[in-house]
Amino acid sequence: MNKTLPLIASLGALAAFPATAQEAAAPVEAAVAVSADVAYIFNTLLFLIGGFLVMWMAAGFAMLEAGLVRSKNVTTQLFKNISLFAIAGIMYWLIGYNLMYPGDWTVAGWIGEIFSPKSIDPVAGAVAGDDYSAGSDFFFQLMFCATTASIVSGTLAERVKLWPFLIFTVVLTGLIYPIEASWQWGGGWLSEIGFSDFAGSTLVHAAGGFAALAGAIVLGARTGKYRADGRQQPMPGSNLALATLGTFILWLGWFGFNGASQLAIGSINDAADVSRIFVNTNMAASGGAVAAIIVTQLLYGKIDLTMVLNGALAGLVSITAEPLTPTIFASILIGGVGGAIAVFVVPMLDKMKIDDVVGAIPVHLVAGIWGTMIVPATNPDTSYVTQAIGVLSIGAFVFLISLAVWTILKVTMGIRVSKEAEISGLDISEMGMEAYPDFVQAK
Amino acid sequence: MNKTLPLIASLGALAAFPATAQEAAAPVEAAVAVSADVAYIFNTLLFLIGGFLVMWMAAGFAMLEAGLVRSKNVTTQLFKNISLFAIAGIMYWLIGYNLMYPGDWTVAGWIGEIFSPKSIDPVAGAVAGDDYSAGSDFFFQLMFCATTASIVSGTLAERVKLWPFLIFTVVLTGLIYPIEASWQWGGGWLSEIGFSDFAGSTLVHAAGGFAALAGAIVLGARTGKYRADGRQQPMPGSNLALATLGTFILWLGWFGFNGASQLAIGSINDAADVSRIFVNTNMAASGGAVAAIIVTQLLYGKIDLTMVLNGALAGLVSITAEPLTPTIFASILIGGVGGAIAVFVVPMLDKMKIDDVVGAIPVHLVAGIWGTMIVPATNPDTSYVTQAIGVLSIGAFVFLISLAVWTILKVTMGIRVSKEAEISGLDISEMGMEAYPDFVQAK
Amino acid sequence: MNKTLPLIASLGALAAFPATAQEAAAPVEAAVAVSADVAYIFNTLLFLIGGFLVMWMAAGFAMLEAGLVRSKNVTTQLFKNISLFAIAGIMYWLIGYNLMYPGDWTVAGWIGEIFSPKSIDPVAGAVAGDDYSAGSDFFFQLMFCATTASIVSGTLAERVKLWPFLIFTVVLTGLIYPIEASWQWGGGWLSEIGFSDFAGSTLVHAAGGFAALAGAIVLGARTGKYRADGRQQPMPGSNLALATLGTFILWLGWFGFNGASQLAIGSINDAADVSRIFVNTNMAASGGAVAAIIVTQLLYGKIDLTMVLNGALAGLVSITAEPLTPTIFASILIGGVGGAIAVFVVPMLDKMKIDDVVGAIPVHLVAGIWGTMIVPATNPDTSYVTQAIGVLSIGAFVFLISLAVWTILKVTMGIRVSKEAEISGLDISEMGMEAYPDFVQAK
Repeated sequence: MNKTLPLIASLGALAAFPATAQEAAAPVEAAVAVSADVAYIFNTLLFLIGGFLVMWMAAGFAMLEAGLVRSKNVTTQLFKNISLFAIAGIMYWLIGYNLMYPGDWTVAGWIGEIFSPKSIDPVAGAVAGDDYSAGSDFFFQLMFCATTASIVSGTLAERVKLWPFLIFTVVLTGLIYPIEASWQWGGGWLSEIGFSDFAGSTLVHAAGGFAALAGAIVLGARTGKYRADGRQQPMPGSNLALATLGTFILWLGWFGFNGASQLAIGSINDAADVSRIFVNTNMAASGGAVAAIIVTQLLYGKIDLTMVLNGALAGLVSITAEPLTPTIFASILIGGVGGAIAVFVVPMLDKMKIDDVVGAIPVHLVAGIWGTMIVPATNPDTSYVTQAIGVLSIGAFVFLISLAVWTILKVTMGIRVSKEAEISGLDISEMGMEAYPDFVQAK
Repeated sequence: MNKTLPLIASLGALAAFPATAQEAAAPVEAAVAVSADVAYIFNTLLFLIGGFLVMWMAAGFAMLEAGLVRSKNVTTQLFKNISLFAIAGIMYWLIGYNLMYPGDWTVAGWIGEIFSPKSIDPVAGAVAGDDYSAGSDFFFQLMFCATTASIVSGTLAERVKLWPFLIFTVVLTGLIYPIEASWQWGGGWLSEIGFSDFAGSTLVHAAGGFAALAGAIVLGARTGKYRADGRQQPMPGSNLALATLGTFILWLGWFGFNGASQLAIGSINDAADVSRIFVNTNMAASGGAVAAIIVTQLLYGKIDLTMVLNGALAGLVSITAEPLTPTIFASILIGGVGGAIAVFVVPMLDKMKIDDVVGAIPVHLVAGIWGTMIVPATNPDTSYVTQAIGVLSIGAFVFLISLAVWTILKVTMGIRVSKEAEISGLDISEMGMEAYPDFVQAK
Repeated sequence: MNKTLPLIASLGALAAFPATAQEAAAPVEAAVAVSADVAYIFNTLLFLIGGFLVMWMAAGFAMLEAGLVRSKNVTTQLFKNISLFAIAGIMYWLIGYNLMYPGDWTVAGWIGEIFSPKSIDPVAGAVAGDDYSAGSDFFFQLMFCATTASIVSGTLAERVKLWPFLIFTVVLTGLIYPIEASWQWGGGWLSEIGFSDFAGSTLVHAAGGFAALAGAIVLGARTGKYRADGRQQPMPGSNLALATLGTFILWLGWFGFNGASQLAIGSINDAADVSRIFVNTNMAASGGAVAAIIVTQLLYGKIDLTMVLNGALAGLVSITAEPLTPTIFASILIGGVGGAIAVFVVPMLDKMKIDDVVGAIPVHLVAGIWGTMIVPATNPDTSYVTQAIGVLSIGAFVFLISLAVWTILKVTMGIRVSKEAEISGLDISEMGMEAYPDFVQAK
């Protein structure tokens, strides 16, 4: 969520930014025209609006995943999504926020303060001279932490036990995400070497994808998914209306995710930048969806709706690393390539027998890497080497820690329901409550 | 929606508010830095954004209730939710707003003005010197009136007749809610004795709950719900995906409900306060959800999704009476207790054979009382006695008037569908239109 | 989206606007109190918030239409809605925006610039002295273009082929809409003769309805819809919960649609006007819903939920041409008449064997004309003759071009699936993917 200044283009005209000259000429007058307090209120409002839009993405993930699992696992998937969001709030407050923005925080001090809760309260009142209220920043940052956790739940659907999943969520939102995010957004070593990830293609999306990938490997595929004859058994989602609704919700929420990551709207330059980000975000999603339409039509002879949904989402993930410097045309291309990648990665994962129920790995991990690596094409202040270092270090950290946590959970309490429970569905076996009890189920 | 000033904590450190000193030091500069017109625009924007978020809660109630009734009653439940929202708008304009904020209004004047509609138009143009536009205030207040009505519809589901329900909605939104709300928000006697209910734990939620309780008593339980052997027949909701969506919508809308009840965002202090409210609102919901997870796991050996949804909502209701003065930790506790209460109250109601289809009484009435009564723990400007007076007076007023209205409706036109109609479902008997005609229904 | 100044009423007191005097007195102080840069940020924020609310309407159309088609066509309907939104983004950028706001644009210049993409990038950075950022305007305008396309998809559901529909969307969003919208909002001849259509009752809604009508005529009715005995076969929607959700989404989004069409919120007068628009928009929807409740109860002896949903939407469409000058009471009447019209037009279309699956023609075309023609009743700066010229010219243009495009598509590639494909459902025949594979389908 670093604010990246508008920059002269590098890749052909794709990042040419016609207003740079105008922006350079304007600041003197602009600086005096908006008082510090007014800018404070605007910036705070941006975080609050952006924050509630990103909060809404939690509902988007819930609907997307509930729509893409089979009806016998819907209640469980809904539960996981609302509970991970609740847990993320508590863990990010209790540990995460302070880990991510350490300041003069110490472990000893924190332990002492557990019994004096106000001291670990990151939400102060108004401080004249600040750029925005601490509470609005906390609110916005919390939603990014929750988003990272949302990404994991879909991949592991239909066979993971409830409580190990909740425990992993505790670790992810309290420790894993805050630590890796602090490397960049907490002013850590990645930001110092010049890594650039505007709103988190890698820090949020690829990170969530890596955690999901580790879980999928330790957990194994769903029973019957990969058949002995080498072919895979289709297990179609039970409610594509919900899945489409979820995609629209995510698309909407992404305006807050990327737009408010500008961190400021208290000057006309920032307001214009936030507007650019809104436009580019929308255009990358359009590009991703259209690319998926074309690719699935050519590849399979029929358009695949779930691929189109994932294409739009992959487009959104792709533009998240740099939604400001690309032109509209570049945004469409970046999103379009992301959408196409997502389509191609799905069968590759199946070949490796990595069972990702909702396609979170193609969409969030792979398109997230693509988006991060393409930043230098439009933002000359970045380099491919630094971007690669960021992706690799965050990827290795999140993947290995997640692998360790999932393995420990597997050995100690088990992370997978029994085969019978899986076949009868987690809604009966784990929760004792069907999502659609009135509708007669096929087979 | 009174603006309660930040205050020094009372209950241990739970309400310690580190910024109080800073806020006291800042106002001189802040006052000059934001012009009156800019503050007017900010405040108006807060009402408009808050208002559309609360409007969205009407959709949340519709989805929650449609998901928690059986499929044969879904069309009816959807209809009741959209029609009550439409009726609330008209009644609040026609009578409610003027009743709630009487000013120099007189009955004689109002009757005369019926034929000169502009005079009963509460939406004026801009008035320099005002804090916000009258229209934005009307818009926001209207949504609270509609929310009160939304609470009632769920409890009475699956057996109430359409037209009596609509008539009750007319009385509730035109008379009952505006009168009791005027006692506090219209500058009435409750506000004068120091009752404190920031965004309406009692004025909106408990009031809606009391109206629902009165209706449930007069209406009686669903046929077959309470069996002769003393056990109750489970009647599971038909679509938990919708119920979860509804909960997410309500959670989102609540940021507007509580946040814009600050009534101002035109200074850095107000902006910081609105931010605190967003954070605390979110944390109380998290606390409520997590409490319900833990309590249902311990109590029943399985986590109950509908209880988790109601736990989150009860957490939101609980914090609504005072979302500003608690610390984050206190907010989690307040919401957590609210969520736990909701879980415990459900079987108690069943024991009393009060049939509340969606759990609106535990969530809105009981958690609303809890939230109102705990205010003095974090806000020393309030007292438990005054809070109790507020709860009791509003509760008695709303309950007794509602009881009378429901009884009159029962005697005159009947409020309950026939047993046959109930068994075949209200969608066929009352509306002649099934919600899911293509899906084969169980039994 | 022209800003129409508040005006003295014409039709009785219906448009009396009490604040006109106050507004006239205030501007001197207001002008100095809000700096140009602050106004720029406020206006930009209005476009961004309004834009994301209108974007959300795309999800509303998707849910409404997915709920009103039979379950065998749901996947296809969902696909059409998300793909048309993606295509609208790309086409409006590539051609539409420049066609709508031509400036010094030339065909030769544009062709030359295809290979220099930045030049056709309408999103510039901040320009001091502008009223708002170009990007925010582009974002907001794009959403109106997409809305026009959304209206078409519902009418043609359940029998149109995918690719011809997508091609028509390309033409509609790239050419038809931008050209007719430029007549008014691009400063063209309609705006010069004084046509008034605040947020697009005709420019967006009737235009979309005319395109849909042309398509419905060329395409023909669904197989079996109109029986030989002159009666029509009911084909009820498969999911009224989704349809209701879609209506609530549209209702919410309409606050952005109408409110941000004020184009400014940088003065207290504009803020008060936006507030009025929010209120009137809500009240027209209420009026439309209540009118539909009453009319269907009287006409059919039972309230019809889908008619109530369409009544609310017709109310919204009706107020869109002038949401500022009416009083609240006038708004309820305008919306109420719109809602009643929608109910009456449905059987008339059936008599003409025009098969409009979701009722888009009554709601968007007919109520759109009604809303446009009633503007002079509350806005004395307009005339019935000019309004009629606007409706007729836009109607004729959109209808005839659409008729030509649909006819060309029919002749060249065919626009209708085979009878067998239609009976088995488009989800199987066109997309090979069922929306609800786990639920046993009736029949």
